[in-house]
Amino acid sequence: MSTLYLLSSGPGDTDYLPPLARQALAQSEHLVAYGLYLDLLGELVNDKQRYELPLGEEIERARLALNLAAEGKATALVSSGDIGIYAMATLVFELLDHAQTHDQNPLWHTVHIDVIAGISAIQALASRCGAPIAHDFCTISLSDLLTPWEVIEKRLHAAGAGDFVIAFYNPVSRKRQWQLEKAKQILLGYRPEQTPVMIGKNLTRKNEEITQTSLLDLTVEQVDMLTLVLVGNRESTRIQTAQGQWVYTPRGYGKKL
Amino acid sequence: MSTLYLLSSGPGDTDYLPPLARQALAQSEHLVAYGLYLDLLGELVNDKQRYELPLGEEIERARLALNLAAEGKATALVSSGDIGIYAMATLVFELLDHAQTHDQNPLWHTVHIDVIAGISAIQALASRCGAPIAHDFCTISLSDLLTPWEVIEKRLHAAGAGDFVIAFYNPVSRKRQWQLEKAKQILLGYRPEQTPVMIGKNLTRKNEEITQTSLLDLTVEQVDMLTLVLVGNRESTRIQTAQGQWVYTPRGYGKKL
Repeated sequence: MSTLYLLSSGPGDTDYLPPLARQALAQSEHLVAYGLYLDLLGELVNDKQRYELPLGEEIERARLALNLAAEGKATALVSSGDIGIYAMATLVFELLDHAQTHDQNPLWHTVHIDVIAGISAIQALASRCGAPIAHDFCTISLSDLLTPWEVIEKRLHAAGAGDFVIAFYNPVSRKRQWQLEKAKQILLGYRPEQTPVMIGKNLTRKNEEITQTSLLDLTVEQVDMLTLVLVGNRESTRIQTAQGQWVYTPRGYGKKL
Repeated sequence: MSTLYLLSSGPGDTDYLPPLARQALAQSEHLVAYGLYLDLLGELVNDKQRYELPLGEEIERARLALNLAAEGKATALVSSGDIGIYAMATLVFELLDHAQTHDQNPLWHTVHIDVIAGISAIQALASRCGAPIAHDFCTISLSDLLTPWEVIEKRLHAAGAGDFVIAFYNPVSRKRQWQLEKAKQILLGYRPEQTPVMIGKNLTRKNEEITQTSLLDLTVEQVDMLTLVLVGNRESTRIQTAQGQWVYTPRGYGKKL
């Protein structure tokens, strides 16, 4: 039996990578990933066999990782952020489920799976900006490649009605540009124009850019594929100190201060 | 100027604690926290000055941390999980805001704040169970100590209507027992009785207990103050393998497999 690690590589800077993930990397000889994620791991992945498949080949990546592990090779499938959040882990289980149902790939079922959690972009951005996700929050992917837009729109209305702090994953891509503006218009029906919005690009990486703006002033030009957008709720508050501008979402201690 | 670290200590096991947090701990002489969180850090906090304030004294903890740092002492305020998620970070910013507005504690504004993100309970539980938070999810605290129950109930309906995967933080306490059952009843109006539910107690710690059940079978007896409850959405799927039972929430690749 061999282990397949489903390994979270964190937001970018390896100072965010915990010992558990380092141990899993050390025990893996074969790494399957989108190439950029391995590059970010630097010397931690020296001397490893790399299998880099481009964006769009997610199913192929998951299959390859299962195949390698089933051959008895010490393998890790690597995603940036947390591999459990909008990333590759779920595809491995979906493939296993599909193979079981269709009586395929019996060797896959000999693979021992170990999921290694990691720090996601939402946490890196929140830590840069103060404490914006200190109360109930949600994440919404704005990619309608795999999820029908009607489902996404229903979730935007629900998040607005429930007054959740919202993180937009996959806010835009080269081909998807209008979804962020549409999401903004929906949310303006539920929260004020001046609601704090935080934009994190290349989080914890070289050329990290953090921008604070308001819901009204959020534009698609501020955002690219490596960006996370975080929208405060109706309680989220800005504070300016000598150090900079912060956003916090209070938990309700206010009256006791 | 001195730095106040707002430091996430992760779910429990220090193998989840990244180098960034270790560096911040190494640079801090004075640690303010609920005592259990420091105990979990073991030898990493040997020889530190510990200020342990019990549950319920959150405002006092945040004040103390700001005061120590303002006196020039190298200080970290420590929360388990991610200090930005239902934890102490927001209270520090709220206190700073309040002090600014009321022209109090001018020395607090000389403190440099550095928020250190960490792995939260939801991620630890998800990694144990497969990939349940692979699509849009939300977190809801069931504690009505600081948030009116009407607000929580509104969010439960929103999360149900939006079909978000849901993590319940603070599902019960010794004095709060009925909220979880009420939440369950609300969600049963939106998703099937057999919706997968995952319960994680003492995550990554000694005596960790992971239980999988269904929304219908979820009861308050399964849950205590150190428990996180994760409820799948309408797509979340169970799969039984030789290794055990997993839950994944598909992202929509299904038709392409």
